[in-house]
Amino acid sequence: MRLRPLVRVCLSTALIPQFRVEEYITVVIDILRATTSFAVALDRGASEIRPVRSLRACRAYKRLGYLTAAERGAQKVPGFDFGNSPYDFLAADLQGKKIAFTTTNGTRALWAVRHARKVVTGAFVNMSVLLNWLRQQDQPVLLLCSGWKDQVNLEDTLFAGAVATELEGDFRVNDDATLIAMSLYQMADHRKKYYLEHSAHFERLVELGMQNDVKYSLRRDLHPVLPYYQEGRLVNALSVPV
Amino acid sequence: MRLRPLVRVCLSTALIPQFRVEEYITVVIDILRATTSFAVALDRGASEIRPVRSLRACRAYKRLGYLTAAERGAQKVPGFDFGNSPYDFLAADLQGKKIAFTTTNGTRALWAVRHARKVVTGAFVNMSVLLNWLRQQDQPVLLLCSGWKDQVNLEDTLFAGAVATELEGDFRVNDDATLIAMSLYQMADHRKKYYLEHSAHFERLVELGMQNDVKYSLRRDLHPVLPYYQEGRLVNALSVPV
Repeated sequence: MRLRPLVRVCLSTALIPQFRVEEYITVVIDILRATTSFAVALDRGASEIRPVRSLRACRAYKRLGYLTAAERGAQKVPGFDFGNSPYDFLAADLQGKKIAFTTTNGTRALWAVRHARKVVTGAFVNMSVLLNWLRQQDQPVLLLCSGWKDQVNLEDTLFAGAVATELEGDFRVNDDATLIAMSLYQMADHRKKYYLEHSAHFERLVELGMQNDVKYSLRRDLHPVLPYYQEGRLVNALSVPV
Repeated sequence: MRLRPLVRVCLSTALIPQFRVEEYITVVIDILRATTSFAVALDRGASEIRPVRSLRACRAYKRLGYLTAAERGAQKVPGFDFGNSPYDFLAADLQGKKIAFTTTNGTRALWAVRHARKVVTGAFVNMSVLLNWLRQQDQPVLLLCSGWKDQVNLEDTLFAGAVATELEGDFRVNDDATLIAMSLYQMADHRKKYYLEHSAHFERLVELGMQNDVKYSLRRDLHPVLPYYQEGRLVNALSVPV
């Protein structure tokens, strides 16, 4: 009998050195808000998103004709076209546009796994597309929670737990971090809002008046796209060959 | 109104750089089996336990008259007096003896937080003593899960969640890793055995015939001691001045 592929959870970018990422299809998760907004922007027609690590690099892409999105400390940085709120991208006409994007945690996580077998990003807003695609690939999966400045966070862990729970059956689970994330999700499933309202990051965002972003980021399957990382940029694997 | 002190959880030794350990009373946790066995050995009368990182250092202490305990890959290392099974220490006469002790994860975690405000070790077998002492100190607490080779594990996370749950009320919780550990404990409380039987480390120990060690490590309050780290060694803070 053929062994099912593994699904594993990495709870923080700081724990990535434990994993041989070359062996895994890696799903980068930054629910609040980068990977949610990646899905929105690609669904709104953006042809590519280029995650960059510094504000300086982001500005440089502006001179190359890119739109630019920049967030630091949960705030839009002045002088750029967008922050990282999903509503910034919902409101914009992005058909055929390229976007350079820098955020505190999400772009850092992407960089940390750039040598993985394949890299995609996931969020509740594109969850079913992600699950279908992972099942088709039939290869080991690593779910990377970006966290908040290397700290483990609730919303990314919940989403990783949701994905692992859905994949179990077609995939194997054999490590404790994955069990922890799955347990958290299964307990929180019907109380997701309750849970997230106790999250430290949620509190920060609410203090900043961003509760609508949080609500949006918890809705499922609004944007049927799959952000796929290729040659330094994210493209929608459902509409272009990857 | 006075602000209650924080209680926080660090899910892996690899995440310690995020914390200013100088500010915290740090509780090192390695349920299977180092911190369980530390409590047993001090309760059996050992006057000190000296955690050392290498087998070579452990051997050197033998020449200084210490008893020696050495574990690698969950197995006792030949040529030393003990492994790290709690039963090794239960069976021995340790009155007034000094023990040099090297293990895969627990001693590494102790080393990582040697500059903390104070360092103690915790396990289910000395949980109530630990809780009482932490309440008396009334200072910020960091619960460090040793994990397994930097990977997050179930049993240490459960114990950290148990301690945080008990301390809440007298202490504040404000980060997501602590919420995750508390949730896991609250869900698992009545199903602890079920939970641990799904843990990866548990499976390893059962394969090695060590299920009795696991059962012992999950029992509460068998050994009313508090291993306290001072000048490179653990002493029982309840019987000697610290």
